Amino acid sequence: MRLTILLFLMVLVTTQTWAQNRKRAREHGVKIGVLPTGKQNAITDVQGVLVGHTTLVQGSNIRTGVTSILPHGGNVFQNKVPAAVYVGNGFGKLAGTTQVQELGNLETPIILTNTLGVGTGINAVVSYTLQQPGNEQVQSVNAVVGETNDGFLNDIRGRHVKEEHVLEAIRQAKDGAVAEGNVGAGTGTVCFGFKGGIGTSSRKLPSSLGGYTVGVLVQSNFGGVLQIDGVPVGEELNQFSFKQQITEKADGSCMIVVATDAPVDARNLERMAKRAMMGLAKTGGIASNGSGDYVIAFSSNPDLRIPYTSDTKTQTVTLLRNDEMSPLFMAVIEATEEAIINSLFMAETTQGKEQRVVEALPVDKVLKLMKKHNALKQ
Amino acid sequence: MRLTILLFLMVLVTTQTWAQNRKRAREHGVKIGVLPTGKQNAITDVQGVLVGHTTLVQGSNIRTGVTSILPHGGNVFQNKVPAAVYVGNGFGKLAGTTQVQELGNLETPIILTNTLGVGTGINAVVSYTLQQPGNEQVQSVNAVVGETNDGFLNDIRGRHVKEEHVLEAIRQAKDGAVAEGNVGAGTGTVCFGFKGGIGTSSRKLPSSLGGYTVGVLVQSNFGGVLQIDGVPVGEELNQFSFKQQITEKADGSCMIVVATDAPVDARNLERMAKRAMMGLAKTGGIASNGSGDYVIAFSSNPDLRIPYTSDTKTQTVTLLRNDEMSPLFMAVIEATEEAIINSLFMAETTQGKEQRVVEALPVDKVLKLMKKHNALKQ
Amino acid sequence: MRLTILLFLMVLVTTQTWAQNRKRAREHGVKIGVLPTGKQNAITDVQGVLVGHTTLVQGSNIRTGVTSILPHGGNVFQNKVPAAVYVGNGFGKLAGTTQVQELGNLETPIILTNTLGVGTGINAVVSYTLQQPGNEQVQSVNAVVGETNDGFLNDIRGRHVKEEHVLEAIRQAKDGAVAEGNVGAGTGTVCFGFKGGIGTSSRKLPSSLGGYTVGVLVQSNFGGVLQIDGVPVGEELNQFSFKQQITEKADGSCMIVVATDAPVDARNLERMAKRAMMGLAKTGGIASNGSGDYVIAFSSNPDLRIPYTSDTKTQTVTLLRNDEMSPLFMAVIEATEEAIINSLFMAETTQGKEQRVVEALPVDKVLKLMKKHNALKQ
Amino acid sequence: MRLTILLFLMVLVTTQTWAQNRKRAREHGVKIGVLPTGKQNAITDVQGVLVGHTTLVQGSNIRTGVTSILPHGGNVFQNKVPAAVYVGNGFGKLAGTTQVQELGNLETPIILTNTLGVGTGINAVVSYTLQQPGNEQVQSVNAVVGETNDGFLNDIRGRHVKEEHVLEAIRQAKDGAVAEGNVGAGTGTVCFGFKGGIGTSSRKLPSSLGGYTVGVLVQSNFGGVLQIDGVPVGEELNQFSFKQQITEKADGSCMIVVATDAPVDARNLERMAKRAMMGLAKTGGIASNGSGDYVIAFSSNPDLRIPYTSDTKTQTVTLLRNDEMSPLFMAVIEATEEAIINSLFMAETTQGKEQRVVEALPVDKVLKLMKKHNALKQ
Repeated sequence: MRLTILLFLMVLVTTQTWAQNRKRAREHGVKIGVLPTGKQNAITDVQGVLVGHTTLVQGSNIRTGVTSILPHGGNVFQNKVPAAVYVGNGFGKLAGTTQVQELGNLETPIILTNTLGVGTGINAVVSYTLQQPGNEQVQSVNAVVGETNDGFLNDIRGRHVKEEHVLEAIRQAKDGAVAEGNVGAGTGTVCFGFKGGIGTSSRKLPSSLGGYTVGVLVQSNFGGVLQIDGVPVGEELNQFSFKQQITEKADGSCMIVVATDAPVDARNLERMAKRAMMGLAKTGGIASNGSGDYVIAFSSNPDLRIPYTSDTKTQTVTLLRNDEMSPLFMAVIEATEEAIINSLFMAETTQGKEQRVVEALPVDKVLKLMKKHNALKQ
Repeated sequence: MRLTILLFLMVLVTTQTWAQNRKRAREHGVKIGVLPTGKQNAITDVQGVLVGHTTLVQGSNIRTGVTSILPHGGNVFQNKVPAAVYVGNGFGKLAGTTQVQELGNLETPIILTNTLGVGTGINAVVSYTLQQPGNEQVQSVNAVVGETNDGFLNDIRGRHVKEEHVLEAIRQAKDGAVAEGNVGAGTGTVCFGFKGGIGTSSRKLPSSLGGYTVGVLVQSNFGGVLQIDGVPVGEELNQFSFKQQITEKADGSCMIVVATDAPVDARNLERMAKRAMMGLAKTGGIASNGSGDYVIAFSSNPDLRIPYTSDTKTQTVTLLRNDEMSPLFMAVIEATEEAIINSLFMAETTQGKEQRVVEALPVDKVLKLMKKHNALKQ
Repeated sequence: MRLTILLFLMVLVTTQTWAQNRKRAREHGVKIGVLPTGKQNAITDVQGVLVGHTTLVQGSNIRTGVTSILPHGGNVFQNKVPAAVYVGNGFGKLAGTTQVQELGNLETPIILTNTLGVGTGINAVVSYTLQQPGNEQVQSVNAVVGETNDGFLNDIRGRHVKEEHVLEAIRQAKDGAVAEGNVGAGTGTVCFGFKGGIGTSSRKLPSSLGGYTVGVLVQSNFGGVLQIDGVPVGEELNQFSFKQQITEKADGSCMIVVATDAPVDARNLERMAKRAMMGLAKTGGIASNGSGDYVIAFSSNPDLRIPYTSDTKTQTVTLLRNDEMSPLFMAVIEATEEAIINSLFMAETTQGKEQRVVEALPVDKVLKLMKKHNALKQ
Repeated sequence: MRLTILLFLMVLVTTQTWAQNRKRAREHGVKIGVLPTGKQNAITDVQGVLVGHTTLVQGSNIRTGVTSILPHGGNVFQNKVPAAVYVGNGFGKLAGTTQVQELGNLETPIILTNTLGVGTGINAVVSYTLQQPGNEQVQSVNAVVGETNDGFLNDIRGRHVKEEHVLEAIRQAKDGAVAEGNVGAGTGTVCFGFKGGIGTSSRKLPSSLGGYTVGVLVQSNFGGVLQIDGVPVGEELNQFSFKQQITEKADGSCMIVVATDAPVDARNLERMAKRAMMGLAKTGGIASNGSGDYVIAFSSNPDLRIPYTSDTKTQTVTLLRNDEMSPLFMAVIEATEEAIINSLFMAETTQGKEQRVVEALPVDKVLKLMKKHNALKQ
């Protein structure tokens, strides 16, 4: 019990300090894409979406955590949302995939954690759902729990994520600014050889293109040849996969959550999800063999909620036509790219398991390179 | 601790008594299909395959359990087997699907249990794998854990399946005859309105067709209009879905595991997996909206084992040509149909949660119908 | 030109005579399933759906043709219908699959013909669409053209299907009773070793289950172990795939078209399409390696028409909830099974290429077997 | 007849002149990626692969053509190659997709042409295959024919591609340097608002990574926000989709063919195919709603040829392990990106239908931008 208290103190500290040392890409003048961002430039710009973190930093070997994304603040099981999953590369353990694909909806919070924490993540989501008021008769819960492998910095075999940490991440979920970098499920991840983690971004389409918002949140933990807004940072820093013609591992993973308020059904959400991998590609990711690259997309549009029970056999919905999807595709690509870059800009140098250190993205050097390549905008 | 001991006594008892009261379909003269069976007419006829059960029957409300299927008796993580998953209807929670589909292999025992036990199933498989000698460095485990919902007879919300039960099912895994009916993951399931459960069957192709063996194991928990070897038993007994034009639920699920010793790769295993749904169809199943119908197929052929690590970049394999697949497809269809029918013939009347009783298939009546329809063979 | 005239005379003759010698399964007392049929027991029971045939029987070697299925009688390109494709086994050439899957709609008549006629089928559908009033600006047409291989009875390499034949099949499309057996695309096909061809059936759900109609049309050309309403006809007649343990080919294909007036979107239409393979399974089909088994499903519901152009960015639709799909699934299974059986009952003995003869289903013998197995109903 | 002769003279002229006015990206110092190219920096660097074009430029309105890619110079039907198709966005008509996906092989040349030419493309490939020595008994041909829509510059409704043009493209197929830009199937295409067309590139892995070659050929016809090696050319030239917040169409398509000599089976070829869309993403493509973005990947490795007939039931193959795929993934991404950029650098300003003019990429301006962004390499 004391352990738990200490733990949450630590979480608190971490949460409070995350934003002090680092700035987001856009604050440095790195402005990705041509579409405007939402107010917070975060997935929470999508109406109703909430995000919470539990950060586990204990001793010298535990560097892991949990991030929750709630499609809305109500009872998600009773009011499901249209959703889809796209598998960019399936070397991963995302639970809940097939039911989302079959039924086209999401009925729980989305949980991100580490690879060996998925079982516990499911158990916690089941506990959460069974205990929610109104769910007294529920006997089946499709928990959506994703992961990346933080085993380089974290004692992953110790399996330190407990149900209580998952439930805490759900409880912490809120709108507004989202903590990024080495928090929550991003506490121990590594991206392009630098410290990765949680990143987020959003796009708000102009009203002529529908006025919808698209938000993306990533848990970045992958490799490749880093490009920041087109600038070949990985090459210039001489840090990239397969350099010097030796077999270096580019492995790792990226979990990507895409939210929108656009009235789109599961079929078009799947198409949006596919575009997230195109945003990842623009950062230099290659979806290597060992990558678990998954995209979960949902619409938080209130008019599309799918009630668990209904007196009627049908539901009337107003949906965007296929022809109107392209701006949303572009928004997904831009927001995904920027969310990944934000995860790098916001993550801090971290020492973890076996005293291993993963350096943060060297922002000063990077900004010099961005200037050299004339890539900073006022 | 005492609880656990009592529990295993009970398991023991159940396991010993399962076979006394019921006979398999074929022993009654119900001979499905045109291909010969293997020696045990069980999935264990496929060389190397092992099956284990933990049956949880406690008090008046707990009727559930765990079944394990091991592709071979060695370290599966270190010696993976080619595998595929086909989703017949995805209202289910099968963990591990996407990695099997991406990499074309299976690296753990397959676990079947109840819907709310999947998280615990994953945790147990991770524990099992991490602790296995040789796996000391393993940091990523793709646990394949399927389920059906036994909540009609079982206090499923009580979540009585514990890690220890899963580990016990793995420990119990053995070759030879397989316990069927209300054992293991089939303890609390319902099929066509009768008591369902675990069933198994196999086919051995004649040498002219390759001589390979196909074995199937099912956890039956679904509805429709029961047909037994073509005889309209459901109609004749006036027990089927949507009868009397009222909205009755046909929901439920079927987990199907297909094993073969044929040298087939993941692509052709996926094709075999698809045929299992055709066998299910022949029993009168309809893959209703609420069904989680999943097929996991693997090859236990020793020459196809995929080593976790290797000194070479390539692997040389001898694979069956596409042209030779059709007899294997037929074998899958026949063995799946018979496995489901066996699950019904072997399951016994069960009283469970809230004093609900699900009757066993009324074998005497059924055999009379089979005779009426001239469907029994000597 | 004269040839064409002669040809259409022949078509006329064939069309007039098809129904004289054979009766449909149900007229013989073979009553498949538990749900009631529609009025015609045909795909045309689905409001708006039209079917047309061009039958090519010329000289001793040409036994082929074209069948068209129109989702409605208007301009399908300008008023598309929700649609899906499911691939049961993809050894086939169905054109148009990926666009239907991506956009969830159908914009042309569906054409069935022989394997080497698909290119010509596409060209004809493009011609038809470009020339339709209102389509003057159309530059892209997704022709949906399926096939099975009638090369056993037909000089398929001679490629005798011409654009004009396809256009004629579209022109002939009408509602009401549908010609079955060796007509249209079924002229030269073989099924379970007997003469196959076109077959159709429908189901009308009781109003308590929504009152919707499901219609199925098949082009049957596959093998396996024939079962008619559960009776093992193939075994009893000693005519089935892989009998006597020798390598006989079970190859062949089945094109299946599923229509409904239920208000279902592309995702649920895909689920319905998957069930058609379950109906095929009940006839004893095995989806052999060489089979091109495809299901195209669409909704003709007038309120779901998708206009090619629109002044608004959205469309409001009333859709069936997932929970209401199961009766439709059952209807698809039953209607598919019966459509295949009808194709056998209606097809006549045919002599074709190289004087090969394929016998019709021996109805007298079959009915005796049905009686022996107590399977005829009044 | 005379028309045909004139036509081929024109083809000849076009073919001879294509290379005179334009240089490839790399010759200008635009060096994409970190891996070395093959000798020709073309898909033909992959041993055995041949490419041919028929360019149709007639009068003021006909600007179209055909491009063929042959996996090897022998009888492809008798010696099939492992292959896969990945659908980036399925608003397109690629014929042959489902059979390639089911059987994992390619049995014909790949043909690229315009959207309304697919039927004719199929017919021509069938003619070609039926007539090839050794194929006298062949009755089923899975023609793989892709397309993009060149209707902005070309009188596409006139359907000017004839079978003879397709056969000519196959006859012209050769190894060595590949004509790029407005040739063959790229004659009338538009990319990022500039003249697009055929482009190609290759990568040769260092021997430590296996030494394999990956080649890519594209038919570029899509939109988005052009980036050249990371430089925001589209933005700087103020020419991109959805600029000024008005609804501009970003539609269009990209056909991508990926070849390798690496010993990879269909499953891993599909994974390679998926990465091509990541290369497309790096050019600024967004896979808009109207895009038909398809990737066909095959292995030309001679040891993996799949004989149409065989005396044995099995085939022994040596395949790359999953773990070795990542460098090939990176090679696909780089070569696809460069192939698209090459298509732009090589295409010339073209006037076509209704006197419309599509300007070539303004190379001088682009190179200035590349310098401004410090992106040229010596």
